[in-house]
Amino acid sequence: MSDVTPRFTTGAPQNLEERFAGRAAHMQPSEIRSLFAVASRPEIVSLAGGMPNLSALPMGMMADVVQKLILTNGAEALQYGSGQGHPKLREQICEVMALEGIRANPDDVLVTTGSQQALDLISRIFIDPGDVVLAEAPSYVGALGTFHQYEAKVVHVETDELGLVPDGLRAAIKSVRAAGRKIKFLYTIPNYQNPSGVLLPADRRTEILTICRTEGIFVVEDNPYGLLGFDKPSPNAMRAEDSENVIYLGSFSKTIAPGMRVGWALVPPSLKEKLIIASESSILCPSNFSQLTISSYLADQPWRDQIASFCELYKVRRDAMLESLDEYFPASAKWTKPGGGFYVWVTLPPEIDTKAMMPKAIVAKVAYVPGTAFYADGFGSWSMRLSYCYPTPERIREGVKALGGVVKTEMSRRSGNQLN
Amino acid sequence: MSDVTPRFTTGAPQNLEERFAGRAAHMQPSEIRSLFAVASRPEIVSLAGGMPNLSALPMGMMADVVQKLILTNGAEALQYGSGQGHPKLREQICEVMALEGIRANPDDVLVTTGSQQALDLISRIFIDPGDVVLAEAPSYVGALGTFHQYEAKVVHVETDELGLVPDGLRAAIKSVRAAGRKIKFLYTIPNYQNPSGVLLPADRRTEILTICRTEGIFVVEDNPYGLLGFDKPSPNAMRAEDSENVIYLGSFSKTIAPGMRVGWALVPPSLKEKLIIASESSILCPSNFSQLTISSYLADQPWRDQIASFCELYKVRRDAMLESLDEYFPASAKWTKPGGGFYVWVTLPPEIDTKAMMPKAIVAKVAYVPGTAFYADGFGSWSMRLSYCYPTPERIREGVKALGGVVKTEMSRRSGNQLN
Repeated sequence: MSDVTPRFTTGAPQNLEERFAGRAAHMQPSEIRSLFAVASRPEIVSLAGGMPNLSALPMGMMADVVQKLILTNGAEALQYGSGQGHPKLREQICEVMALEGIRANPDDVLVTTGSQQALDLISRIFIDPGDVVLAEAPSYVGALGTFHQYEAKVVHVETDELGLVPDGLRAAIKSVRAAGRKIKFLYTIPNYQNPSGVLLPADRRTEILTICRTEGIFVVEDNPYGLLGFDKPSPNAMRAEDSENVIYLGSFSKTIAPGMRVGWALVPPSLKEKLIIASESSILCPSNFSQLTISSYLADQPWRDQIASFCELYKVRRDAMLESLDEYFPASAKWTKPGGGFYVWVTLPPEIDTKAMMPKAIVAKVAYVPGTAFYADGFGSWSMRLSYCYPTPERIREGVKALGGVVKTEMSRRSGNQLN
Repeated sequence: MSDVTPRFTTGAPQNLEERFAGRAAHMQPSEIRSLFAVASRPEIVSLAGGMPNLSALPMGMMADVVQKLILTNGAEALQYGSGQGHPKLREQICEVMALEGIRANPDDVLVTTGSQQALDLISRIFIDPGDVVLAEAPSYVGALGTFHQYEAKVVHVETDELGLVPDGLRAAIKSVRAAGRKIKFLYTIPNYQNPSGVLLPADRRTEILTICRTEGIFVVEDNPYGLLGFDKPSPNAMRAEDSENVIYLGSFSKTIAPGMRVGWALVPPSLKEKLIIASESSILCPSNFSQLTISSYLADQPWRDQIASFCELYKVRRDAMLESLDEYFPASAKWTKPGGGFYVWVTLPPEIDTKAMMPKAIVAKVAYVPGTAFYADGFGSWSMRLSYCYPTPERIREGVKALGGVVKTEMSRRSGNQLN
């Protein structure tokens, strides 16, 4: 009988799950994912997405920039490039960061495929399964997803209307360490935070930097919105105050265009080599085509004026959203008053479940992101993120009005239930 | 005394190494890395790099394609896009793959930032530390580096002048499983392999597919060079024969331009969701700007003729290299005779150490990649990869002549040493 036994099937996997890596169990569709398919229908006012509004970007100018680039430097723009990113663009990135008080060496900049890739690479070099990442409560859904895939435990730090609370940070560090776990870094968005819209004041920045330096915890400062302040200039970046302990992430997605997928990390020299090697393993090199398009644009076009135009466009939309929240939302709801960026964070009475309410909002032709998406721990069920970046002011008013109606109905249904 | 004790330093890391993830220990600079800095000096004939030769690509045409794209569809081209990749481009990718006998559904295509990102994502969903990846001996250095970062053990499979040896594959599976290890996939480049230039015959493809299917081992078919056959059409892709067990990787880097960073994976439906989620976590979405540039090019330009132009250009260079190897290399050296792609693999007498010989080659103004770079196990020390893709035929002859002189001197020095 042994002659007819298959020769090599010993050890062959019996099912698909057995063939995946352990981390693949953490690759599950997010709740936002299916939502966006619905929210992108034209009849829905989407207050859900974070797409920049490109209507202020002159397309004729962009077309000329790219055409000229290919004609004058096509052989380089279409070729493989440096794993770390193009040297010229890295110099220009330092000029952009100087606007927020950062003095940096282009040698310490790594260009990435959007700052999402920087989040991925930082996770890759730091996170062993079970390690702790500290993050604001609430925090950016895309960052939480990446930390989760690397099997980190995200511990949320207390925030208030001014952002991260230093004493909350101290308490979180103490309790995580008391539980015997390693903290790898604090992830924070100090400027016009996603999803809260909150701006962290200068004195808190200094205090948080001191805590993290003392405790041996890197700060990952994610700053896509820093140049999009409408009312007054933002405080200096945290990296401006600490070049040794801060990993700074920047992006052109909100100040030029996200379709380029050009972001960057400015890193302490001690981390640079590992991040470059990790990036080369991940994508070989970032796109010269995108990088040199942005480099040409920065060299030849009035990019500071363009950012000012974006700010004007978003300010009008922010105002439309805050005014219509005042007008259409119930008095028991609270929301942030962002001085820049894309988002307002709305907190409803705790009996409202914003995820369960979503289908009713869709029927009323408006979409948002339920608050639980921005927490790693299931919190946030009575909150929601509203984006004002993309729709027109008229559509924003229309959407907030519709949503206010849904919220009020839900509240009276709940209180009616309580009475019954 | 206890009052002056710092409050929160318990558990703080003491040094940098302690702060990294375990996998970071595998992020070490490769030997090729420092080499490329030297090889890119203008006075050196570089037979080391794998940069496509873009001199056959009409830059005026490319400039027009991009300009028109931005003017007619800039709002989409510069915006965030789908995590899976643009639907139109995924359809066109299926047309390109049809040239190699593949029938595919655009729904099963994931667009990636070069096919390197696909290698990264596949590693991410499959590889737990200690898992085994099977690969040709020798194999692509960039793939080996990625597998290594995910802490896989690469087991090389025997090859001959026709590529992977099916009995060698059977033996490798048997011995790995006898050692109690899990095999996650076979990584193979069947067409004009990097670094060997070898083309795997159709009958071996079928046999290897059968072995892997029977044994429950996915085949990762990496095919950047399949359309760059000079002498005759390549056999059908392995994926054409097996849509359930083959993960196929393609790229526009060698048929259009690498600066776009557009590659793709065509995957069995059972793997698609996890790969898309992993990609979104890694880069959010691939660049619409690059994707739609390639899509416009494919839609409006004679891309098949362009590939034929590239083939002509590379054929002349391949011929120059093979002729000058005949003329200038010692009779005891052997080399492959590629029918397409970019590379010739040279095997010298075993007493020659090609890594130790590199400085002498640089002095003689020629560079190559030492064979050990293409092995995970330190093998290959008397081999080297020569690329003919980038230099002119005259420079190739010059470089091979200089290198032949270095090799002959090294051989007589060695045999002189033996006589002493």
